[in-house]
Amino acid sequence: MKVKSSFGPQFKEFEIGDIVFLAQDKPLKLVNGSEIKNFPIAYQTYGKLNENKSNAILICHALTGDQYVASSHPITNKKGWWDFLIGSKKAIDTDKFFVICSNIIGGCMGSFGPKEINSATNQPYGLDFPALTIHDMVNAQNLLIEHFGIKKLHAVVGGSTGGMQALSWSVLYPQKVNLVIPLATSYRHSPQNIAFHEVGRQAITADPNWNEGKYILHKTYPTKGLAVARMTAHITYLSEKALQKKFGRQLQSKENFSFDFKAEFQVESYLHHQGYSFVERFDANSYLYITKAVDYFDLEKDFGNKLSNAFADSAKNKDLKFCLISFSDDWLFPPSEAKKITMALVSCGIDVSSITIESNAGHDSFLIENEELKNSIAGFINKNYK
Amino acid sequence: MKVKSSFGPQFKEFEIGDIVFLAQDKPLKLVNGSEIKNFPIAYQTYGKLNENKSNAILICHALTGDQYVASSHPITNKKGWWDFLIGSKKAIDTDKFFVICSNIIGGCMGSFGPKEINSATNQPYGLDFPALTIHDMVNAQNLLIEHFGIKKLHAVVGGSTGGMQALSWSVLYPQKVNLVIPLATSYRHSPQNIAFHEVGRQAITADPNWNEGKYILHKTYPTKGLAVARMTAHITYLSEKALQKKFGRQLQSKENFSFDFKAEFQVESYLHHQGYSFVERFDANSYLYITKAVDYFDLEKDFGNKLSNAFADSAKNKDLKFCLISFSDDWLFPPSEAKKITMALVSCGIDVSSITIESNAGHDSFLIENEELKNSIAGFINKNYK
Repeated sequence: MKVKSSFGPQFKEFEIGDIVFLAQDKPLKLVNGSEIKNFPIAYQTYGKLNENKSNAILICHALTGDQYVASSHPITNKKGWWDFLIGSKKAIDTDKFFVICSNIIGGCMGSFGPKEINSATNQPYGLDFPALTIHDMVNAQNLLIEHFGIKKLHAVVGGSTGGMQALSWSVLYPQKVNLVIPLATSYRHSPQNIAFHEVGRQAITADPNWNEGKYILHKTYPTKGLAVARMTAHITYLSEKALQKKFGRQLQSKENFSFDFKAEFQVESYLHHQGYSFVERFDANSYLYITKAVDYFDLEKDFGNKLSNAFADSAKNKDLKFCLISFSDDWLFPPSEAKKITMALVSCGIDVSSITIESNAGHDSFLIENEELKNSIAGFINKNYK
Repeated sequence: MKVKSSFGPQFKEFEIGDIVFLAQDKPLKLVNGSEIKNFPIAYQTYGKLNENKSNAILICHALTGDQYVASSHPITNKKGWWDFLIGSKKAIDTDKFFVICSNIIGGCMGSFGPKEINSATNQPYGLDFPALTIHDMVNAQNLLIEHFGIKKLHAVVGGSTGGMQALSWSVLYPQKVNLVIPLATSYRHSPQNIAFHEVGRQAITADPNWNEGKYILHKTYPTKGLAVARMTAHITYLSEKALQKKFGRQLQSKENFSFDFKAEFQVESYLHHQGYSFVERFDANSYLYITKAVDYFDLEKDFGNKLSNAFADSAKNKDLKFCLISFSDDWLFPPSEAKKITMALVSCGIDVSSITIESNAGHDSFLIENEELKNSIAGFINKNYK
């Protein structure tokens, strides 16, 4: 089923791609207690599912990512966000594997999210949308996998928030996945990261065009608030070294200061661009819900304040292996946090290859083409494919 | 001369303290080319100036600091921000030294700033206020020192933006100062720090109550925008370690998540408090102007891209000595930047004692009582006092 959608400041129509309605017979219970049923999940697939359905790889997207992992984005027309990694003859070879990527619930690219219509009111959900967690997103992905009739995934791969989903797959459905590749992620969101998210949420809800979340109804859009939220977040996606290398203190278009409040430094202009291009493709309420879900994520607390407890059941799947990838200058999810996950896995007797790639692009390194990244993923998923 | 002032969301009246009008005969030329004259500087003094005027210590306040360094703040009624350091029998002993602290130009506690009345229009300056630099602030301080008839300061002390002023004193007026104590500061503002400032400015100017800077005229106040700016900045004042220690992932007032958009985590509540208490005591346009001045600061670029050039003249004052203090977990102005200043000073043959204090409060460490901090400042200013 293909549908059209529109949102954002322009309300331009675009085609979503594939959508399926899940939980039709039995509702999905969310962590917060509410139940959802017959809800849409939008997804993209690449390659062909083989006869015994053993070649499926699930890709989990990051905070503001989407299902267009290896195909062009319907709003920006940019190529897939992991185009360098996934495709025919690429590291994740779609001639061999069947790759699935779905928009997370809470998202805004066709899956069940706060801009969808609430049948009870005939209006967009807005803040009536239920609170979500990473586990809910994974439970919804599991229904999609069941819809394809897949009993076991060859691999689950994801970076950042996608990495939290990959970790959760190994915890919630350890018998349904063989290989887990979490990148640039953590077992819980740190207080500093929660603080950055909260500043973003404050910026959105401070925008009068947000209208208590009912901006679609009011035909307004919290463009400025959402742009400020994105700018703040973007600083955390890079590193001091990356910003120094990319921009330093270079001025935008002149030798001397203009002494005004326009973007004088290149780094300011870059931030403005990141902020204002983002609002064209993202829904403000989705940003509120998804950042909250990430803040809630804490595999340690969920399992009696002992991280290794989280993987106790996972260890029962003797085929389960991890390849855990971190990046040296990622200060959002630093290598020290991957190290803690590695320790927990090892103590459970689970095979884990832990790699820290030398980088100078900060957290965003997992989205940038890199030979070590491609080779390690290709080696791991091919060597372990029977 | 004592005056009353009012500003902020409440427009409550409060007493400023001492004010003097400077540049009455000859205007002060600013770095951006404009000239200002007969402008107010608000200041506080502690202790008594001795007969030969050799016991004066100038304290330079930080970004959002003020002249109430060792006396209570007229709006918040909190004690002075360096009360633990300055006073009778304290590290900077006011029984011995005459301590001066003035509100920087661009500020909002009585000195010439964007909320003052522009005599040309009879309205507050707003964005008609001239762009400022750290050097302008120091040039204005120099006029205040001349007003007191002080030929040479025993010491200039300042942290963060105040440290930039202290460094500038040694560069612009090397014959007028003996001891320089810059704390938690740098020779230039990094691209990452510029980025954080710009996000704050974007948050302020995105607030419709900012009204293109004419909010006093419109009797509105960009409370939400300024609060978001302060929250963002506040994250950079602490450290990951500090946030972890102070709050961790502790919830505000309950065991389980409330699954709403109120402050659930303690760190969120803390940020809200920091943001909304700040707007009571600070002017939004002042925040724009002062953050810009800090962003412009670059002693390296100003002196032919070689930092040691900046101190070439300073070396001619044979009495000039530095005590440079950084804090181990300050990620806004990390110890590596103090190291670079130390190298430049040493290469000019200037005495410099460089200290990195082990801390776990991030950049804000310079504002928190600490024995090493007190002892090093006391030792340095007393040992070198004849």
